[in-house]
Amino acid sequence: MTVLTILNAPGTEIPDLLTDLGDRDGIELRIAEAETLSRALPGTDVLLMWDFFSTALRDAYASADRLTWVHAAAAGVDSLLFDELVDSPVTVTNARGTFDRPIAEFVLNYILMHAKSSIGSLADQREQKWNRRSTRDVAGSKAMIVGTGAIGREVARLLKAVDIEVTGAGSHARGGDADFGDVIDSSTLADHVGGYDWVIDIAPLTERTDRLIGSEVFAAMDDTAVFINVGRGDTVDTDALVAALRGKEIAGAGLDVFDEEPLPADHPLWGFDDVIITPHMSGDTRGWRMRLAEQFHRLFERYLAGEEFPHTVDKKLGYVR
Amino acid sequence: MTVLTILNAPGTEIPDLLTDLGDRDGIELRIAEAETLSRALPGTDVLLMWDFFSTALRDAYASADRLTWVHAAAAGVDSLLFDELVDSPVTVTNARGTFDRPIAEFVLNYILMHAKSSIGSLADQREQKWNRRSTRDVAGSKAMIVGTGAIGREVARLLKAVDIEVTGAGSHARGGDADFGDVIDSSTLADHVGGYDWVIDIAPLTERTDRLIGSEVFAAMDDTAVFINVGRGDTVDTDALVAALRGKEIAGAGLDVFDEEPLPADHPLWGFDDVIITPHMSGDTRGWRMRLAEQFHRLFERYLAGEEFPHTVDKKLGYVR
Repeated sequence: MTVLTILNAPGTEIPDLLTDLGDRDGIELRIAEAETLSRALPGTDVLLMWDFFSTALRDAYASADRLTWVHAAAAGVDSLLFDELVDSPVTVTNARGTFDRPIAEFVLNYILMHAKSSIGSLADQREQKWNRRSTRDVAGSKAMIVGTGAIGREVARLLKAVDIEVTGAGSHARGGDADFGDVIDSSTLADHVGGYDWVIDIAPLTERTDRLIGSEVFAAMDDTAVFINVGRGDTVDTDALVAALRGKEIAGAGLDVFDEEPLPADHPLWGFDDVIITPHMSGDTRGWRMRLAEQFHRLFERYLAGEEFPHTVDKKLGYVR
Repeated sequence: MTVLTILNAPGTEIPDLLTDLGDRDGIELRIAEAETLSRALPGTDVLLMWDFFSTALRDAYASADRLTWVHAAAAGVDSLLFDELVDSPVTVTNARGTFDRPIAEFVLNYILMHAKSSIGSLADQREQKWNRRSTRDVAGSKAMIVGTGAIGREVARLLKAVDIEVTGAGSHARGGDADFGDVIDSSTLADHVGGYDWVIDIAPLTERTDRLIGSEVFAAMDDTAVFINVGRGDTVDTDALVAALRGKEIAGAGLDVFDEEPLPADHPLWGFDDVIITPHMSGDTRGWRMRLAEQFHRLFERYLAGEEFPHTVDKKLGYVR
């Protein structure tokens, strides 16, 4: 008997593809929410974090007596990981691959909106104002992509497809990368970020990337450059970002993630003319929940068959290596 | 002695690169505006329409006694051409190539803004509203590009680079096109346009394309499809477009050109939530006037050297073949 527990958020639907697993011989399916997780965990072999931002496992972990695998239906696993889980033999997998292309398209959307002055055009439109002006070419512009994981690579490929030059910033400097060519050490961003038009943050949140991008980096950016974050809000010093925008040290931003979500209604970031705020949705294109369900379903079949997973999270690093 | 006349619009600067031509031996430079053109034309060999939307040549044409070449600093020559010019031996050239990539990027921006619900995100932002939702993938979507000239081809190449499928609509049906594969006859658009996500109008304005896109085409489009016009406003039946938007026959539009420009302040097109209005600026990226000046300068050197032009406008067709 394999016991599969799905941790769900209140009011969120779980696709039939997953709930139907409970009808299979040899599988017991339990559906839990944060408050009931500690009761569901005893006997659970496999935990699916369908509530992908939940930190409930940390609180309930003492009740886990035979857990072998946790799957997070998300790319970032920062909210899931904690010391006892990291030090345990439990395998952790994530939604690697599911969000890559949607997020890359979202980044290109931010870039084009800034280059083509779209916020200004929509503002003019509301006043029926015919305000002809010059905009910027995207071809030939330069992007620094902070984070060289699967999503960062897909961003690089898409931007290169529209003739944007890309450089990567990762955990260590190297050359000859298939997608980036040169990769700089992201701890030296301030030394390299001048001359780039777009600085794109898609780094995983780890101890190393916590507040990685702060006042030094913003000061080193061109004042015509735009900062884009589709990774994790905590990789940025938000006060420094607000100060850089106020001081016109950078020209604007495209922000999908924040250190506090939802972004509070009174937060200064809402109010800048050259900042596009979106509510942590860059990866969520139509059918995204079904794609997440299908991905878990494929991994679960492998688990039942005793096969290896194509990728697992390096729990010490905090991301898939 | 070669007499070069530059027709300029009031208040528009002419780059030194062009005015310096008047210092060269054997060249007389005249600067005219619409009202003074008829006085400048006698003796003029070459006319540069720096005021690229002007129809002044038609009115002043009787004064042209030795004109051999007219260059329009624009892609579309519809406002320039008239019967006497078409029937004359005068060579007409245009700004072919200068606007291709900027316009293609502008089209991609419209597409991404619609796919990623950017108008809605900016509206939510103004109300500090955190409104998470699903958006659309651009990869795998389908575009019908009406107009298979240089700009249409660059649009096709850029959209294919981000994995959008493209079909062309041109003056005649054909297969095996290098950029489009299949090209349909644009007069049969209504028979083919169903199933496409993006219908992009970059057709030149000719007798054949005048009001080419009307109620039949909009009715045949999917109600989730978006209409984009970066060509000429007169290729569209604007009343039919307004009706299609009101009737939700199509999902939205991105419009850079209109049958009346500037778009009147009381025009209904300004007010739709899912329509992006921009003021005929899709091709105008930083340095565009200098690029136009450089292009004319190159052609003028060829003219002086007695060399052929790399492209000329087929005056009967109304565009470069």
